[in-house]
Amino acid sequence: MGKYVTLKQLAQQLNLSHTTVSRALHDHPRISQATIQRVKQLADELGYVHNPNAQIMNRGKTKFVGVIIPDITIFFYSKIIETLQIELGRVGYSLLLFNTQENEAEERKAVQSCIEQRVAGVLAAISAGTKQHDHFEKILKHEIPLVFFDRVVNFLPVPKIIADDYRASYQANQYLIEKGCKCIAHVTASIHLNNSNNRLYGYMDALTDKGITVDEQLIKYYEMNPQSIERFLIKTIKNYPQLDGITVFNDYVANVVVNALLKLGKKIPDEISVFGFSDEPIASYMHPQLSSVQQVAPKMASLSAQKLLSIINQDEALTAEKIVINQQLVIRESTKK
Amino acid sequence: MGKYVTLKQLAQQLNLSHTTVSRALHDHPRISQATIQRVKQLADELGYVHNPNAQIMNRGKTKFVGVIIPDITIFFYSKIIETLQIELGRVGYSLLLFNTQENEAEERKAVQSCIEQRVAGVLAAISAGTKQHDHFEKILKHEIPLVFFDRVVNFLPVPKIIADDYRASYQANQYLIEKGCKCIAHVTASIHLNNSNNRLYGYMDALTDKGITVDEQLIKYYEMNPQSIERFLIKTIKNYPQLDGITVFNDYVANVVVNALLKLGKKIPDEISVFGFSDEPIASYMHPQLSSVQQVAPKMASLSAQKLLSIINQDEALTAEKIVINQQLVIRESTKK
Repeated sequence: MGKYVTLKQLAQQLNLSHTTVSRALHDHPRISQATIQRVKQLADELGYVHNPNAQIMNRGKTKFVGVIIPDITIFFYSKIIETLQIELGRVGYSLLLFNTQENEAEERKAVQSCIEQRVAGVLAAISAGTKQHDHFEKILKHEIPLVFFDRVVNFLPVPKIIADDYRASYQANQYLIEKGCKCIAHVTASIHLNNSNNRLYGYMDALTDKGITVDEQLIKYYEMNPQSIERFLIKTIKNYPQLDGITVFNDYVANVVVNALLKLGKKIPDEISVFGFSDEPIASYMHPQLSSVQQVAPKMASLSAQKLLSIINQDEALTAEKIVINQQLVIRESTKK
Repeated sequence: MGKYVTLKQLAQQLNLSHTTVSRALHDHPRISQATIQRVKQLADELGYVHNPNAQIMNRGKTKFVGVIIPDITIFFYSKIIETLQIELGRVGYSLLLFNTQENEAEERKAVQSCIEQRVAGVLAAISAGTKQHDHFEKILKHEIPLVFFDRVVNFLPVPKIIADDYRASYQANQYLIEKGCKCIAHVTASIHLNNSNNRLYGYMDALTDKGITVDEQLIKYYEMNPQSIERFLIKTIKNYPQLDGITVFNDYVANVVVNALLKLGKKIPDEISVFGFSDEPIASYMHPQLSSVQQVAPKMASLSAQKLLSIINQDEALTAEKIVINQQLVIRESTKK
C-alpha cells in the first residue's frame, strides 16, 4: 500500500527525461516555462511530494534521529521526548523512537535499526538491564554521531549530558542530617547505571562527611519488585528501630517506600523522613507531598539535541565530553522541617 | 556525518558491477563462490549494512509507521507508544513519532512528514486544538493506510479504535445517582473531541434517564486552564449549595477539581463525590484515591497496530469501521459507598 507518485512516473507520463522533470520541479533556468508549468501541473494533479530521504539515503544521510530510551511511561523520559520533538522538528528532523523496556536485547535491536535506517544521529539513555556495551561501539564504527543523556556509557568517547546526581544526592542526605536524622537508609537501582550509582555515592559521602558510618545493611538494591521494598523495611525497622530517614533513587520507588511505611504504622516525616529524586508529577500528588530533587528533563533534552545537531552539522567533532546540569532540592512535606 | 558504506562503494573497490555485488551478497547461484567470498569479506571489513529502505523507498514502501499523538506526557499516550513499539517492532517496523502538543499546526506538519517520509501507514489520535481535518484526507489521497484511535475524525472512511466512552460515562454518573447524588456537575474538554463529547452525552443521558434535568450551568468546558476550575467551583457551590457530585473527563483535571474542593473546605466523598476517567496512575496516588474508568491504552494500541498491519499487508481493505473497547468502573475512595 501507499501510493507515492515518483519522479519516474511523472517523467513517463510526460514523456520527458527524469533529469528534465527534476529540473522543472526546481525551476532550473535551462527548462522552458511551458515545460515547468506542464510538469508542475501533473505533479500537483498526481500529488507528487518531494521525498527528502530518497536521494540522501544513497549518500548515507537521512533526516531521522534515532532516540533510544529505557521506559517511555516514566514521566522524565516522556518529557525528554516532548522536548526532543520540538528541538529536532524545528530543523526538519523526525524522531525514530525506540523504547527498550529496560531490556538489553531490545536495546541491541534498536541500535541495529538505527544503523540500518541510516539515521543522522543517535540520542540514547541505556536500559537498567544493559551489561555489555559493544552495540554502541558499532554506532561509532559507522561514524554515526552519538550523544548519551541521563544514563550513559562512561568509557565511550562521545558527549554525555547528565545531571549532577552525586552532588544533589549528597545535598539531600546532608539536608536530612541537618534536620536531625541520624540513621538514614538508601534505596538504589542497578549497579550498572551511572545515575543511581552517583546518587548512592552521594549518600555514602554525605554520611561519612558528617561522621556517620555507612552501614551496608541500610542500602537496598531495588530490582523492580515493589514487594521487596516492604520486606526490606520490615527487616530494617526491626534491626534499626532508630531509623529516621530514607533517601530513594527515584520518586516512583519513594512512593512505594512511603506507602509501605504508612502501612507499617510509621509517621512521615515525624518518625521517618523520605526523600525522592527527579521531581516527577507523583511527588506533588502524594500525601504527604514528597521532597525530591528538581526535574531537569527539558533542559537535558534541549542540551542533548543541540549537541547532536552541532555534530551532525559538523560544527564540532564527536569527542568525549561531559555536560553536567545542576539540580536544586525541592522540599515538601515528607521531610522534617 | 554517518559513514554508511554503499553497494556502489563496494562495487568500485572490487571493480565489479553493482548487480554482481548485490547478487553476491544474496548468494545468487550465477555468482562464483570465489566472488561471493571476496564481496562478503570486503562488506564485513567496511561494515556494510543492508538498508531495508534504500530500495523500497523508490517503490514507495518503507518499514516506518507514523504515529501522531497529542501529548506524550499523558500516561495514556506513553502507554500507547510502549505497546505500539512492541507490536510493530515484532514485525520489523520502526516508529516515527510525532507529538503534536495538542496543536493543529503541529499535527499538519506531522502529516506532511509522514507523507514525505513514505511511511507504510499512520496511526493517529487528533489534538484538542484540531478544528479542520483536510490534512488527514491528504493521507488517504496517497492511499496510505490510516487508523485512528482514541480521538478520531468521525467522517473519514477509515478504521477507528475507540473506547465506549458514552457507556462508561453513563454508568459512572448512574453510579453516583444510585449512591444518593442528586446534583451532579460535569467537566468536559474541547467540543471538537469525540471522546470527551461522548463522556458528556453519557452524563446528560444518565441524568435524564433518572429523571434529573440537565442544567447547562453545571457543565464546565475545560480550556487547559486549572485556575478556571477553581472559579467554576466557587460559582457553582454558591449557586448550587446542594452540589454533591462531579464527573470529570480525565483524571488529571479530576485531581485539579479535588484539590480545589479541599481548598474550599469541602469533604470528599462525604459532601461531594468526584469521578475521573482513564485510571491514570495519579488516580491511585491521590488522597482520597480517585474513582475512575478503566485504563485501556494497551488494548487500544494492540488492536490499532493489528488493524494497521493487516491493511498494510493487504489482508483487508481500508474501510470505515469502528472497534469499541469496553471499560469497567474502578471504584475507590472519592465516591460515596
